[in-house]
Amino acid sequence: MAHNVLVRLAKLPDGHLTVDDFVVEAAPIPVPADGQVLTRTLWLSVDPYMRKRMQEAREGRNPLASGDVMFGRTVGVVEQSTVKGFRAGDLVLGWGGWRHYAVEDAATLELLDASLAPSLSLGVLGRPGITAWLGMMHVGRVQAGDTVVVTSAAGAVGSVAGAIARHHGARVVGIAGGRQKCERLVEDGGFHAAVDYTADDFEATLAQTTPHGVDLGFEAVGGRVLDAVLSRTNMDSRIALCGLVGQYESGEPHSYRNFGRILERSIRLEGFSINHLHDLHAQARANLGQWLSEGVLTPSETVTDGLENAPTALVNLLAGRGYGKHVVRVGDI
Amino acid sequence: MAHNVLVRLAKLPDGHLTVDDFVVEAAPIPVPADGQVLTRTLWLSVDPYMRKRMQEAREGRNPLASGDVMFGRTVGVVEQSTVKGFRAGDLVLGWGGWRHYAVEDAATLELLDASLAPSLSLGVLGRPGITAWLGMMHVGRVQAGDTVVVTSAAGAVGSVAGAIARHHGARVVGIAGGRQKCERLVEDGGFHAAVDYTADDFEATLAQTTPHGVDLGFEAVGGRVLDAVLSRTNMDSRIALCGLVGQYESGEPHSYRNFGRILERSIRLEGFSINHLHDLHAQARANLGQWLSEGVLTPSETVTDGLENAPTALVNLLAGRGYGKHVVRVGDI
Repeated sequence: MAHNVLVRLAKLPDGHLTVDDFVVEAAPIPVPADGQVLTRTLWLSVDPYMRKRMQEAREGRNPLASGDVMFGRTVGVVEQSTVKGFRAGDLVLGWGGWRHYAVEDAATLELLDASLAPSLSLGVLGRPGITAWLGMMHVGRVQAGDTVVVTSAAGAVGSVAGAIARHHGARVVGIAGGRQKCERLVEDGGFHAAVDYTADDFEATLAQTTPHGVDLGFEAVGGRVLDAVLSRTNMDSRIALCGLVGQYESGEPHSYRNFGRILERSIRLEGFSINHLHDLHAQARANLGQWLSEGVLTPSETVTDGLENAPTALVNLLAGRGYGKHVVRVGDI
Repeated sequence: MAHNVLVRLAKLPDGHLTVDDFVVEAAPIPVPADGQVLTRTLWLSVDPYMRKRMQEAREGRNPLASGDVMFGRTVGVVEQSTVKGFRAGDLVLGWGGWRHYAVEDAATLELLDASLAPSLSLGVLGRPGITAWLGMMHVGRVQAGDTVVVTSAAGAVGSVAGAIARHHGARVVGIAGGRQKCERLVEDGGFHAAVDYTADDFEATLAQTTPHGVDLGFEAVGGRVLDAVLSRTNMDSRIALCGLVGQYESGEPHSYRNFGRILERSIRLEGFSINHLHDLHAQARANLGQWLSEGVLTPSETVTDGLENAPTALVNLLAGRGYGKHVVRVGDI
């Protein structure tokens, strides 16, 4: 390939993200400066937090702007390097963004173990897996016997969170959109039960599947889904809040009918982010690696082919299509 | 006195509580059974949680009903007792409710130290003081250097919470209704600054008085007051939630504009109640007693005279009139 291809954010979305919010264009292949490495992208990670950053940018709380190359985690192969520790052919995890070729500061790159499927570093062994670990182990402190409810249960984070909870002896109920996804959560995902939040009887089914109430909520959605979970909470329950994806595309804040339960039931509702708990990452990675090797974690992926289809992959993710970790296959080794 | 006087709840209030929601009537003086003690009431405690229980009763979550004698903590003097450990003339803390004479199970009574002003056992050394201790010390974990915001700062709980925070080296900002109360918070209450939530410039003043953000919120009000506090929170801040008094008299749940901050700023929002943390009460009482003797705590009271005026006292409390702990003087030793 004699040129680069970039996917830029054409404009900051208002409401639902569409593929028209992006533009694909050709560009020259960049040249690395001292301390930098030229990488060729193999995999892009597609994640809900991307939509959140766009919303923050609209509100002036994030420097992302129209015209920027779309950001995101990438697995790449080193094409050119004068930096010690990185040689052509090395597999690296970075923040290359949505392009075929990226110049990345070596300090931001992590060498990957070539014996593992590289996309695992974007999912179960990467930020989604670590987020699940932080929510279940550190914030939520899952206990044997707990009833745990996981929202976005079929997503990259929720699927791992559910598996961790089950491994620790909890009864695990997943919430996801659509009957098919819910069936798969129970049949393949190890959830004891699953509840479709798009169904008319969502709240009734959530009540039926949590006959002893909810001790721990792993919450990535917010809005009416969190409100329903709040209605089922037990005394001294915990809600580990890692996302409000149901809010990113809607302008209005949700009015929580059951906010008062936080008081009445002595609930601990705690927000957390992988960006603020760095000292726990090593422990999280060690556990996740072990659980993967033991079969406790069985990764699922939704793979989209081709950089030019990355916008579609993100739109699909936000619309709740697909199962497990969403990745885009950009190139081959 | 040859007869008893009772204050009954005439009906469960809808919206603002009024004195017409109560009825005062004469009744015979009750006769204690085995294990019971006849007490004559000296002091009634008047508290925000009373309105909350009425609301819960309307929603079917509390057995309180129209016609019931109004419940509440009381300080009384033992008039008649065959129970070991209680003699005529003893001062006791109980749940006698709004009446001149009550028959109380001895197991629910606590003997009071006659060397202390009896109403202290309803305030700084009683449930309000313990609630303040639990919120600051256990849930909020106040640290030297924290900026602490206390809502209902001129109330029985908030005034103690503020004093505890100041004693631990925090910068303490109180929120209260009205300019006069705010002036008193700073002049007599030991608060570094006070903000009037009824003023047009409430949010701007809160921002000015918390130039380094808020590390710990002691929250008893909810609604737009909590929303404003959320807007000022720092990363990893805590909100100890002991009441939502702003919500008890309004039908609609507040739509929290700043709910997302819980996620973005890794906030721990934790509800708590004195009714669920019994194992900490002894430690709380010991600290509160010591701080009272050292002058760290300087109790303020709003005293209403006469049992028949107890409804007015509660209406005044809920309307934000008065300062410090609200009590009704029913009789003398």
